[in-house]
Amino acid sequence: MLKADQSSHKDAPVPVKSLPQLARDLRNGTVSSRELVEAAVERHAATEARLNAYRTFAGERAIAQASAADNLIADGIDLGPLMGLPVSVKDLYGIPGLPVFGGTDATFPTAYEQPGPVAKAVLSQLGIVTGKTHTVEFAFGGLGTNPHAGTPLNPWSSPDAPRVPGGSSAGAGVSLAQGSALLALGTDTAGSVRVPASFTGQAGLKVTHGRWSLEGILPLSPSLDTPGLLARTVSDLAFAFAALDPNCTCPPAPSESPLRFGVIRNVVWENIDASIADNTTGALRQLEKAGQRLQDVELPSATDLLEIFRAGGLAAPELRTFLDLNFPERIERLDPTVMARVQAADEISATEYLQRRAILAESGVSAARVFDHVDVLVSATIPVSAPLLSDLSDPDAYRTANMMALRNTALVNLLGWCALTLPTGLDSNGIPSGLQIIAAPGQEERLLAAGLTVEAILGQGPEVLGSPQL
Amino acid sequence: MLKADQSSHKDAPVPVKSLPQLARDLRNGTVSSRELVEAAVERHAATEARLNAYRTFAGERAIAQASAADNLIADGIDLGPLMGLPVSVKDLYGIPGLPVFGGTDATFPTAYEQPGPVAKAVLSQLGIVTGKTHTVEFAFGGLGTNPHAGTPLNPWSSPDAPRVPGGSSAGAGVSLAQGSALLALGTDTAGSVRVPASFTGQAGLKVTHGRWSLEGILPLSPSLDTPGLLARTVSDLAFAFAALDPNCTCPPAPSESPLRFGVIRNVVWENIDASIADNTTGALRQLEKAGQRLQDVELPSATDLLEIFRAGGLAAPELRTFLDLNFPERIERLDPTVMARVQAADEISATEYLQRRAILAESGVSAARVFDHVDVLVSATIPVSAPLLSDLSDPDAYRTANMMALRNTALVNLLGWCALTLPTGLDSNGIPSGLQIIAAPGQEERLLAAGLTVEAILGQGPEVLGSPQL
Repeated sequence: MLKADQSSHKDAPVPVKSLPQLARDLRNGTVSSRELVEAAVERHAATEARLNAYRTFAGERAIAQASAADNLIADGIDLGPLMGLPVSVKDLYGIPGLPVFGGTDATFPTAYEQPGPVAKAVLSQLGIVTGKTHTVEFAFGGLGTNPHAGTPLNPWSSPDAPRVPGGSSAGAGVSLAQGSALLALGTDTAGSVRVPASFTGQAGLKVTHGRWSLEGILPLSPSLDTPGLLARTVSDLAFAFAALDPNCTCPPAPSESPLRFGVIRNVVWENIDASIADNTTGALRQLEKAGQRLQDVELPSATDLLEIFRAGGLAAPELRTFLDLNFPERIERLDPTVMARVQAADEISATEYLQRRAILAESGVSAARVFDHVDVLVSATIPVSAPLLSDLSDPDAYRTANMMALRNTALVNLLGWCALTLPTGLDSNGIPSGLQIIAAPGQEERLLAAGLTVEAILGQGPEVLGSPQL
Repeated sequence: MLKADQSSHKDAPVPVKSLPQLARDLRNGTVSSRELVEAAVERHAATEARLNAYRTFAGERAIAQASAADNLIADGIDLGPLMGLPVSVKDLYGIPGLPVFGGTDATFPTAYEQPGPVAKAVLSQLGIVTGKTHTVEFAFGGLGTNPHAGTPLNPWSSPDAPRVPGGSSAGAGVSLAQGSALLALGTDTAGSVRVPASFTGQAGLKVTHGRWSLEGILPLSPSLDTPGLLARTVSDLAFAFAALDPNCTCPPAPSESPLRFGVIRNVVWENIDASIADNTTGALRQLEKAGQRLQDVELPSATDLLEIFRAGGLAAPELRTFLDLNFPERIERLDPTVMARVQAADEISATEYLQRRAILAESGVSAARVFDHVDVLVSATIPVSAPLLSDLSDPDAYRTANMMALRNTALVNLLGWCALTLPTGLDSNGIPSGLQIIAAPGQEERLLAAGLTVEAILGQGPEVLGSPQL
């Protein structure tokens, strides 16, 4: 296990300032948005040929917007917490003037460039969009692969033996590791925020389905799709969540009294990589030492839910329907791994689909009784290391690796709950591993409070992991 | 055409007082709830053997509750507008202590007797539930037939040549004609409130999907199911709507200025019975004479929507799924006409089902542009007369008659809008015909205002129709 020990901190680069600190610095004039964004553009220029985080980079336009933000700040105008901060956006979101590919081989009509509420919330605060990050085609995959535009490099792997960055928000985590953005918008249908966050050593938040609007975001599975955030730390996530969520009453803070953590014992430990199990167990031990209360719990229905997930879940028929109705001509040009699942949707009957929905809804309600006894649940975010890209060329190998990468995160989507991930260390391949924290539906404030508590005990990602060689 | 003319009014019984008048009389002591409910129980006793409105009649309990209501009123306690008024409830709703059959051959578990928000709103005002009225099995049919418990008699037909009462709220309209209730709770998935209201000479309101909760109501098709009301007049409907709707800001009142009525010209006139066409045209002429503004309009997508409806719509797979998951053993015991459609659901794929949903949602939005130019739309509620029960024994004949009875009303459900019906006269078989008034989603107040305007011009049902021989 290559977990970074205390001594490695000295070799790590000077930690970048937190988003709340930068927001203050912008307002007191000790830093300018133009400096932040120019640094982001330089980081992009220096590393993008290798990392390939963006489908469309918009550096010039971002610098011009940063200058505008600086002028407004100098005039005492404050448009919101994200003002002047560089934000990357997954290429499923509409952002005016930037093409939407959605991981496909062609742009979507310009109507898809219209921003929905989440993107509007960033834009109206004058968050500075650096560009559109790569996604798995239609977000339908957890590894981050994309044959049309190339798969972003996992920054913790070598270009000689590239490992996947996790997906579907494949470029989002990479953009943060790259330093071209300090916050990344992603989406999460089965783990598409948490998996790339974990594999690239970032923090990631998937909100409860329905909490944030899906308008202005290319759909995969509207029944399960959720917008989400990636950032370098849980503290940054909490800051961004409070900035973007219309119903967040207070900025989340670490819990003052010990929390009750339910450690999921069934399913999520099956076939887990030994070094990841060690990192997870080590993290849990640190929590216990620090006075938090841990208890083992079973997650009811998990096996049934995963059976539904492996059979195509709701996403396969829902994406198939979207394509049939709107872009039938694109089906034959799909990434073969996506096409296989889209075509398999034809075998699913309406009653099978409706039964799945009913079982998910019922399971989400009944399993939530576990929260009568614990504040949050925890598991390893991903039970396996990021696969080598070269190991995924066989369709069966891809399928197995994809299901394994998404297994622990997908449970949360299927149950309709919310979750976040933060780093626990490096696995035996030198790839970051993560701890998933899970809360009841609509309990994002409690979830973030737990995440802040854990982060205060384990340390922030860059302290835990050091930095990758870019 | 046997439309009742002015002179027939003299032979009609003294008109019963309106619900608002009765509510006032209860409070000023000129009538007691016990008198009202005892009269209802007597009407039931005198006619039920022939009419068969109720699956479960609860006369004794209703009288006891009425006495309790009188005592409370005497003490100055006012629990709400429906206090003390006799209300019949379709046997899909949970009412504590009364069994739920849902039109099947056996009761459902007692959990189904728990009232949802609509029933609770009646009960908490101390509306007096007279009993549970017959429904088509699982509400899956528009004619009102039921082989398990018998089909209620259309009160405008003779027991020697019985005609169907309309359905699926088959006993609801009959209970009003019978006089055993002054308000009836029904449900409407494709016309199940408006069809029985029209065939029995009552007024009926189907609210927008989602406006009222479906909790505590046995489902047919949760995507399209709506609670609804039947009453003797639109004025009574408006009173009950204001009493039951948590978001109704003001009691609806007739419009003071002329309204713009869009007369639907496509689809709804096809194969219409000549006498019903006459009644409809006559009603429209009266509106025009009275200064209302009429214009012809086309309802976009109507043909596509009806194609989906004829292919089983959303109801067939949704009911099939409910049964498979909860009551698989009941499938083989279903009414054969229901079973045929439930089993046909197996042929529908998930993508076909999802395409139907997408097309309905899109059509509902795009077709609603018609309301930029008119306040409400109008059509005949049902294009045909209530069939003779003896004409429905052949499955194909049943199927054709069922589709025809529901055609004009189903369009409103498929579009996601709201509508009401009120009587226009008697058709050539002596069965009432109705005018359907349709409004944009969520515009129930405007709909009821239009209904009150029309009722003020055409006259209230009992004035227009006279009374059936019971």
